[in-house]
Amino acid sequence: MPAEGEEMRPSEPIARAVLPQNAAGLLERLRARSPRVHCITNTVAQNFTANVLLAAGCVPSMTLSPEEIERFVATADALLVNLGTFDAERREATRIAIDAAREDGLPWVLDPVFIDRSPSRAAFARDLLALKPAVLRLNHAEFQILAGEAPTPDAATRFARAHGTVVALSGATDSIADAERVASIANGHPLMAKVTAMGCAGSALAAACLAVADNAFDAAAAALLMLGIAGEQAGANAAGPGSFAVAILDQLAALDAAALTAHARIDG
Amino acid sequence: MPAEGEEMRPSEPIARAVLPQNAAGLLERLRARSPRVHCITNTVAQNFTANVLLAAGCVPSMTLSPEEIERFVATADALLVNLGTFDAERREATRIAIDAAREDGLPWVLDPVFIDRSPSRAAFARDLLALKPAVLRLNHAEFQILAGEAPTPDAATRFARAHGTVVALSGATDSIADAERVASIANGHPLMAKVTAMGCAGSALAAACLAVADNAFDAAAAALLMLGIAGEQAGANAAGPGSFAVAILDQLAALDAAALTAHARIDG
Amino acid sequence: MPAEGEEMRPSEPIARAVLPQNAAGLLERLRARSPRVHCITNTVAQNFTANVLLAAGCVPSMTLSPEEIERFVATADALLVNLGTFDAERREATRIAIDAAREDGLPWVLDPVFIDRSPSRAAFARDLLALKPAVLRLNHAEFQILAGEAPTPDAATRFARAHGTVVALSGATDSIADAERVASIANGHPLMAKVTAMGCAGSALAAACLAVADNAFDAAAAALLMLGIAGEQAGANAAGPGSFAVAILDQLAALDAAALTAHARIDG
Repeated sequence: MPAEGEEMRPSEPIARAVLPQNAAGLLERLRARSPRVHCITNTVAQNFTANVLLAAGCVPSMTLSPEEIERFVATADALLVNLGTFDAERREATRIAIDAAREDGLPWVLDPVFIDRSPSRAAFARDLLALKPAVLRLNHAEFQILAGEAPTPDAATRFARAHGTVVALSGATDSIADAERVASIANGHPLMAKVTAMGCAGSALAAACLAVADNAFDAAAAALLMLGIAGEQAGANAAGPGSFAVAILDQLAALDAAALTAHARIDG
Repeated sequence: MPAEGEEMRPSEPIARAVLPQNAAGLLERLRARSPRVHCITNTVAQNFTANVLLAAGCVPSMTLSPEEIERFVATADALLVNLGTFDAERREATRIAIDAAREDGLPWVLDPVFIDRSPSRAAFARDLLALKPAVLRLNHAEFQILAGEAPTPDAATRFARAHGTVVALSGATDSIADAERVASIANGHPLMAKVTAMGCAGSALAAACLAVADNAFDAAAAALLMLGIAGEQAGANAAGPGSFAVAILDQLAALDAAALTAHARIDG
Repeated sequence: MPAEGEEMRPSEPIARAVLPQNAAGLLERLRARSPRVHCITNTVAQNFTANVLLAAGCVPSMTLSPEEIERFVATADALLVNLGTFDAERREATRIAIDAAREDGLPWVLDPVFIDRSPSRAAFARDLLALKPAVLRLNHAEFQILAGEAPTPDAATRFARAHGTVVALSGATDSIADAERVASIANGHPLMAKVTAMGCAGSALAAACLAVADNAFDAAAAALLMLGIAGEQAGANAAGPGSFAVAILDQLAALDAAALTAHARIDG
C-alpha cells in the first residue's frame, strides 16, 4: 500500500523518463542481439574498445586491411571510424569502409580524436562529416575546431542541424544534440578522463547502440548513459585509474535495464 | 591413515592421468627454460598475449618488420602466426617468419582468427596450413570454414590426419586431436569468451609449450589446460570480464604442476 | 622526545637527500603542468604507456603518421622514441619527430628495445644516439650491445660522457649516470619484469620529467624513482602480474611528493 501522500508527488516530466527507458530498451537489445561492430580505431584504443564492446554484449572486429574491410563491414551491424593514430592505412580503410556502410545502409559513428592537434586530420574529419555519420562523438576541444565556436548546447544543436548528424559531446556533463533536441547527461566520474581510450569506448558503444536503435539520438544518449553509469559505479570503489579501468568493464557487463533506469541522470 | 575402503577405489584410467602429468611437466619446463616465443599477432591482442606469455614464464617478442623478423625468429624457440587484423605487413612478415622457422626446425602455431568473416583470409590460412603448422588453434566457426564440416571430435581427427597437424579446437569444451587421438578438456569459464584475445592467448601458450615439448599433441593439450584451469580459478572470484582478465594473469603466474594435475578435467 | 643517542646518528649525506627532493619537485610540477608527451612506441606498449602518462598527470599522444607527427611534436613538451616493434613507418616517423624536436629544443628519450635481438635495430639505435637524446633508457643486455662492455656504473658514466647523454639503466637496481655522477635506485619490485612494457613506461616517464626538469640527470632519476616506488607499493598487495599492472597505475596516480621522499632508496 502506498504511504500516505505518495500519490501527491508530482510525476517526473515525461521527457526525463523517456530517454532512460529508451536507453534501457537499447541495452536489453544489445544483450539479446549481440550486434557486430566493426571498428577502425587507433592502436592505443583497440584492446580496451574490444573489451568494452564485449562487456556490452557485442562482437567487435578491427581489421584495417583494404582487401578485407569491405567484407567485414558488409557482415557487421554498425561501423566506428575513430581518427586516433591516423595514417595512410587507416585513411584507405576508412574510405572503403564508409562506402560499404553507405551502400548497405549501415549506421556509422565518427570520432575525430585530437583534431585540435593536427590540421590535416581536422581537414579529413570535415571530409568525413560530409558523408553524414549518424553520430559525431567528440570532446570540447574537438568540437571547437569543427564548429568554430564553443561547445554550448545551442551550438551543438546548430551544428547537428547544419550537418544532419547527432552530436554527442563528452565532458563533465555530456550533451547529446540533434536538429531539434538536446539532452544532458550528468552521470560519469572524474577518473574517466584518466584512462586512455575512454572517449573512444563511448564512440564504440554509440555504434553498437545504433545497430539496435530506431534513431541516432536515442543511440548516442544510451551509449553515454551506459558508460557514464558504469563509470560512476566503478569510481565508487576504485583505488585509482588502473582499478577504475578494470571495474568499468565489470560494471558495464553487469549493468541491466533496471539499474540503468534507476541511476540515469539525464535532462532532455 | 587411509579411510576404510579407500584402496578399493578403482584407479583412474591411465590415459586420463598421463595428459595432466605431461602438462604439468611442460609447465615446469616453461618456468625453468623461459622459452622465447615470437608472435605475429594482431594489434588488439598484442599486449594481453605478451602478458600471458610473461605470466607463464616465457619471453615474448612481437616485431613484424621484414628486415628484422628473420633474426627474431632465428633466435626464438617457437613462433605464433595469428591472422587477426591481417594486412600486407603481416602477410610479408608471415612468409619470412615461417621460412625461417622451417629452416631452423622451429615449431609454429597457426591461429586463423575470423576466417569466417573474410574469404581472402581463409584462402591465406589454407596456404599456411599447407606449410604444416605443428598446431592449428581455432574456434568452431573457423574450423567449419577450413574443414567444410561441423567441428566434431571425429572431424577434428580426420582434419588433423589429412593436414599433418594437431587441431586444438576451443569452445565450451576444448578438443585436441592428432591423427590418432582426441582429448577433451572441460576446464574453463564462460568469462573467457568475454575478454578479447583469450583465444589468441591460448595459441601463444601452445607455441610456448611446443618449445619445450616432445610432441605437439601434449603441447596443445597443456596450453589449453593451463589457460582453462587459470580461467576457472580466475572466474571463481571475478566480478566481471575486467577483473577476470586481470585474475587469469595472476592465476596463470601462480599455477604450478600440483595444482594443474589436481584440477585438470581432461578425457583422452 | 628523541630516544637516547638518536641525535648521535650521522646525518644522511647531502647527495642522498637532494635527489629525492628534486624528484619530489618534478612530480609536483608534472601534476601542476600536465606536460604533453608525444610517444613513438611499439604497439604492445602503447596502451599501458598512455595510462602510465595519464596516471602521472601528463597528456600522451601517439600518432606516427608522417604528415601529422611534426605538428604533434611541435605542440608537445617532450618526445619518446621507443624502438619496439620497429618498422618502416616508425623509422620515418622517428626521423621527422627528432628533427622537429631538435628544431624546437624539445628534450627526447631513446629506448632501444631488444637491440640485442636485431643487428639492424642496433645500427639504427647508434644513428639515433648520434642525434643526442637527453636520456638513453635501456636494460643490461641493450647496454652491452651499445657500449660493448658490461653495464657497470663506471661503464655507464664513460658511455654518458662519450655520447653526451644521460644513461638510465634499468635492472634489479637502476643506475642513472651522466658524465660526472652516478646514482643507484634500489626501489622496485620483481613483478615489474613480469609485465610487458614496464621498461617502456619508465622511458615515457623520463620524457615527461624532462619536460619539467632543469637537467636530464634529475629527470631520469625522478622517473625511475616514481616508477620504482609505485611498483614497490603495488607489489605489496598484488596477487600476481595482472593485479600488479593495475595497482602500479593506481599507486603512480596516488604518489605524492611526501611519499616519494619518504620511500626513495637512492644513492648518489
